[in-house]
Amino acid sequence: MTLPLQADPEVIAEGVNLVWVFVATFLVFFMHAGFGMLESGQVRSKNVANQLTKNVLTWGIGVVAYFVVGAGVSVAIAALTTGSGLSGVFAHLDAGSTGWANLLFGAAFSMVAASIVSGAVAERAQLGGYLVFTVFVGALIYPVATGLTWGGGFLSQLGFADFAGGAIVHMVGGICGLVAAYVVGPRIGRFDDDGSSNVIPGHSLPYAVLGTLILAFGWYGFNVGTAVSVFQVNEAGELALADYAYAGRVAINTALVMGAGSIGAALVGYVRGGKVDPLMTANGLLAGLVSVCSIAAVASWRGTLVVGLIAGIQVVLVFDLLERVGIDDVCAVFPVHGSAGLLSALAYPFVNTTSAFSVTQLGIQVVGVVVLAAWAAGATLAVYGVLKLLGRARVDREEELEGLDASEHGIETYPEFGGSVVDESGPRG
Amino acid sequence: MTLPLQADPEVIAEGVNLVWVFVATFLVFFMHAGFGMLESGQVRSKNVANQLTKNVLTWGIGVVAYFVVGAGVSVAIAALTTGSGLSGVFAHLDAGSTGWANLLFGAAFSMVAASIVSGAVAERAQLGGYLVFTVFVGALIYPVATGLTWGGGFLSQLGFADFAGGAIVHMVGGICGLVAAYVVGPRIGRFDDDGSSNVIPGHSLPYAVLGTLILAFGWYGFNVGTAVSVFQVNEAGELALADYAYAGRVAINTALVMGAGSIGAALVGYVRGGKVDPLMTANGLLAGLVSVCSIAAVASWRGTLVVGLIAGIQVVLVFDLLERVGIDDVCAVFPVHGSAGLLSALAYPFVNTTSAFSVTQLGIQVVGVVVLAAWAAGATLAVYGVLKLLGRARVDREEELEGLDASEHGIETYPEFGGSVVDESGPRG
Amino acid sequence: MTLPLQADPEVIAEGVNLVWVFVATFLVFFMHAGFGMLESGQVRSKNVANQLTKNVLTWGIGVVAYFVVGAGVSVAIAALTTGSGLSGVFAHLDAGSTGWANLLFGAAFSMVAASIVSGAVAERAQLGGYLVFTVFVGALIYPVATGLTWGGGFLSQLGFADFAGGAIVHMVGGICGLVAAYVVGPRIGRFDDDGSSNVIPGHSLPYAVLGTLILAFGWYGFNVGTAVSVFQVNEAGELALADYAYAGRVAINTALVMGAGSIGAALVGYVRGGKVDPLMTANGLLAGLVSVCSIAAVASWRGTLVVGLIAGIQVVLVFDLLERVGIDDVCAVFPVHGSAGLLSALAYPFVNTTSAFSVTQLGIQVVGVVVLAAWAAGATLAVYGVLKLLGRARVDREEELEGLDASEHGIETYPEFGGSVVDESGPRG
Repeated sequence: MTLPLQADPEVIAEGVNLVWVFVATFLVFFMHAGFGMLESGQVRSKNVANQLTKNVLTWGIGVVAYFVVGAGVSVAIAALTTGSGLSGVFAHLDAGSTGWANLLFGAAFSMVAASIVSGAVAERAQLGGYLVFTVFVGALIYPVATGLTWGGGFLSQLGFADFAGGAIVHMVGGICGLVAAYVVGPRIGRFDDDGSSNVIPGHSLPYAVLGTLILAFGWYGFNVGTAVSVFQVNEAGELALADYAYAGRVAINTALVMGAGSIGAALVGYVRGGKVDPLMTANGLLAGLVSVCSIAAVASWRGTLVVGLIAGIQVVLVFDLLERVGIDDVCAVFPVHGSAGLLSALAYPFVNTTSAFSVTQLGIQVVGVVVLAAWAAGATLAVYGVLKLLGRARVDREEELEGLDASEHGIETYPEFGGSVVDESGPRG
Repeated sequence: MTLPLQADPEVIAEGVNLVWVFVATFLVFFMHAGFGMLESGQVRSKNVANQLTKNVLTWGIGVVAYFVVGAGVSVAIAALTTGSGLSGVFAHLDAGSTGWANLLFGAAFSMVAASIVSGAVAERAQLGGYLVFTVFVGALIYPVATGLTWGGGFLSQLGFADFAGGAIVHMVGGICGLVAAYVVGPRIGRFDDDGSSNVIPGHSLPYAVLGTLILAFGWYGFNVGTAVSVFQVNEAGELALADYAYAGRVAINTALVMGAGSIGAALVGYVRGGKVDPLMTANGLLAGLVSVCSIAAVASWRGTLVVGLIAGIQVVLVFDLLERVGIDDVCAVFPVHGSAGLLSALAYPFVNTTSAFSVTQLGIQVVGVVVLAAWAAGATLAVYGVLKLLGRARVDREEELEGLDASEHGIETYPEFGGSVVDESGPRG
Repeated sequence: MTLPLQADPEVIAEGVNLVWVFVATFLVFFMHAGFGMLESGQVRSKNVANQLTKNVLTWGIGVVAYFVVGAGVSVAIAALTTGSGLSGVFAHLDAGSTGWANLLFGAAFSMVAASIVSGAVAERAQLGGYLVFTVFVGALIYPVATGLTWGGGFLSQLGFADFAGGAIVHMVGGICGLVAAYVVGPRIGRFDDDGSSNVIPGHSLPYAVLGTLILAFGWYGFNVGTAVSVFQVNEAGELALADYAYAGRVAINTALVMGAGSIGAALVGYVRGGKVDPLMTANGLLAGLVSVCSIAAVASWRGTLVVGLIAGIQVVLVFDLLERVGIDDVCAVFPVHGSAGLLSALAYPFVNTTSAFSVTQLGIQVVGVVVLAAWAAGATLAVYGVLKLLGRARVDREEELEGLDASEHGIETYPEFGGSVVDESGPRG
């Protein structure tokens, strides 16, 4: 008899899974263009080139730091917190083709966490100091967070659940940004002596919205791509769907939560003053996306809509709170990533359709976010604190007033549009 | 003897088809960024934030409306027009992972139709009224169109052919936009009392062109993605190519038609006045893409080039016609989507390489576009007519002159670039 | 006994390979949006619409030229230089679905080469003449380069290695741009009579950086997509990984080289004047991507970092050199694509991990780049030389001073932002 043609399930799974990992990785990479536009739109024209340079070099320096050091740190932390050995910590450097492909997906995630920070310290952080901090995020701060969790460390063993990194990526990034913004201090003119705050509008809302929509596009790779394996080979040796058994749920939740988040933020503005705030609506969409990260694989679409709506509402309220306590988080990265990421991780036991609500799970989630938040805050305080002592955290008063494009780069971003005229008039400089 | 390893064709097909559906869906989603830039570039700087807010909330509100209500309406319309029962109308709400993945592809299509409208009524439509209309598009107008056709309703049974929605998505969206623009009325200053028209240039051609190229990128998902199944399992139980048997034809036609459309529109300007119009050239590229939607799977590349060239030429001519009849279609959505979509559906029997020209098929196509156009026009007239009666269609004269960013959102989009200076001088406000 | 279900390895390979080809092709197409923004950001506001029109029509006209003529020329050149027959030269026109899908990947590559040129001759090249040249690039210049190499022509038989086209696409495009810029001559005001050069800053750095990041995103399709086959069927009739056996290496090298290139270019500015140049940092990232094209499939990540660093450094130095010899390469296309592509092809034998360093291979690489460079330079000199003789290479002095948007298109790109004010003051026009 003639035997059937051979199609080894292992081979099918490896090839198709790789196609998917590549697609997801490319999309997550593209989020950098989103961050670049989102952040540069929210700064004044005199600081645009500086912000964009930070974005380009965040990837440039950060991805090398993550690849050469950070990925190994993640393995080491997982090993250290679970008592296993440290052998193979730097095995990823010679992982080979398929190993590197999977590693790159993680590297792209690490740079999302790093990118978040640049929005918080915009318009006054020194380029050099910021880049040193980025090396720490890529090589240490983020890898410790993944080592404790996705890498198999003690939070993972405890049962901490954070599917696509609502806490691990976004809350960590948002807290790093918040603490860095606190250490660096507010921009000149942001707060008056009596504690009242002044709005310093960004120079281009279209950039911010374009950045938001690029981020949303890339987020499909971030969330649905975290359902990383299309196929697996089951114990009977048969090809079976792997994470793709639930990837459609992740996708529909990701799509719908943008609606809930944007509506939530729009409603706050409308209820307060009868007007919908365009930037906050965009931020609400992003906060919705953050808030679904931990729960996307297990929440119903109804649960997702509720969490997303809360995420959108809290963006505005938390941003106001930061203003009241005098922290100048230029691009609202803490409301969008930090508190929305916290919400996501804590919402997990409430919206998990795969098991009943469990106080134990809630406790685990609390432990997880506390550990991760403490690590992110402490590490940032240490690194940016030292940078501040060394005079590397912030540009001089004159440089800030002149603008970082001129003082740090010697250029003018819009030589034809007379942005400098604005600098001479009033509170904006 | 050893049996071969097991790779069930059904499993292979489900997993790989899902990868492809995800890729296509993400691309179609990204078209929203394209619409956002295309439209915001074509409005004056005083209305940019409003336009972008409409874009963000079109997805935000519209996708929820489509998912919760619209997808069920589509099923119901298909059932009602073919005499089958209404059971399972809302089954999609609990469709499960793979079902939701496929549903999201449709949801992204629905929001393309909805987004088209915002370009037609730009610079004077109220945000609130527009959003109410968007809910109707997502929940009713577009779902009825798909229920009659792709959903299996009576036009489908009649044999109406519209592969990727030249008529179902684009013509319907374009007609909704046209009628909405008619009901809302032209912008102040667009037409003089003697009926002559004034050009009101948009504030940023680069945004419009960037939007065009983002749309073109996403359109590959829209068109080639409509060849939705990579694999199927044939009657012998074997794995076989499904829509992928012709997907390459769709891809090459999609790529080439951009050329034909852009060349067609560029030629009209060149022949008329010796100058190539940049915006019309971009619109011609888009009209080419619309014109290939109905025919991409069956047309030869030669037929595609001819149809695309006509589509590009008609963009300019139809836009002029609208000016002459006093309709202010700000972003030329009717020439680009409406009439080009009509062209696409009617061209089908002429360029179909899979069967000889058939007068019957042409008649069916005419019936299809008439039914769809009548539905889109009538529904829009009803909804926007009621909005007008309620005073929700259009902002006040003062608000329009001041700009919708200030009047509806209380912000200035470009605080540093003195857009307001322009508003004080002459015909632009 | 029951036979296993049938999953023919050939069918699996064809379907999955097509998914991947589509993804890669769409990404490479999207690079046009990147070129559009990169180039339009580097020109003055009076020439923006012209630059964008060139970008749109490069794809529009060029892809048709490549498809109808160029792809056949490539086959013919391969046949002629290897002594095989000319039958089947235009077989691609009726290639059928899968054939067209693969052809479109090549067509998208051809338009990368064509797009590079428009950045070199910006702000003074006539639209008509440029488009004629684009037809030559798509129909002749680029196809000859691929016919000699990837198509199987004599350089291929010699053993010339150029994985993703560091020389074939980028060096060829960069040299076409360089020679065209030389023939067209520098912009008015770019060089003084004493040979000293003036900086003419572009009007929008954010566009340039956004374009860079879009290009980087698309480059994953360009590089990793060149590992074009996920699966193949081996001689035993079994499904096996094809190019995907090394695709992960390509991906990680592509990601890391952006870091090396951007750091290299940033360092040059920092070392020279204590300041990081934003635009050169972005150009360094791109030059890094060019420099990895020839070597991505065989270099170690360490070798990649070294080559990328050199690529980033040389961007600044080569750009300075061009200034010194009086060539006005507006968008630095020769440093970014030309010399970095040359570097890539010549670096191949030094960083190839699959075989020891070979002087013979180095010699072959030298022959390859000399032949390709001579062809690109000679063909460009001929075509643009004739255009110059016919008065079609460059706009008049008055038109250039007024700006190409007004003189060639009769429009103003930013009607509200008073770009024309700048033109009246000083050296910029």
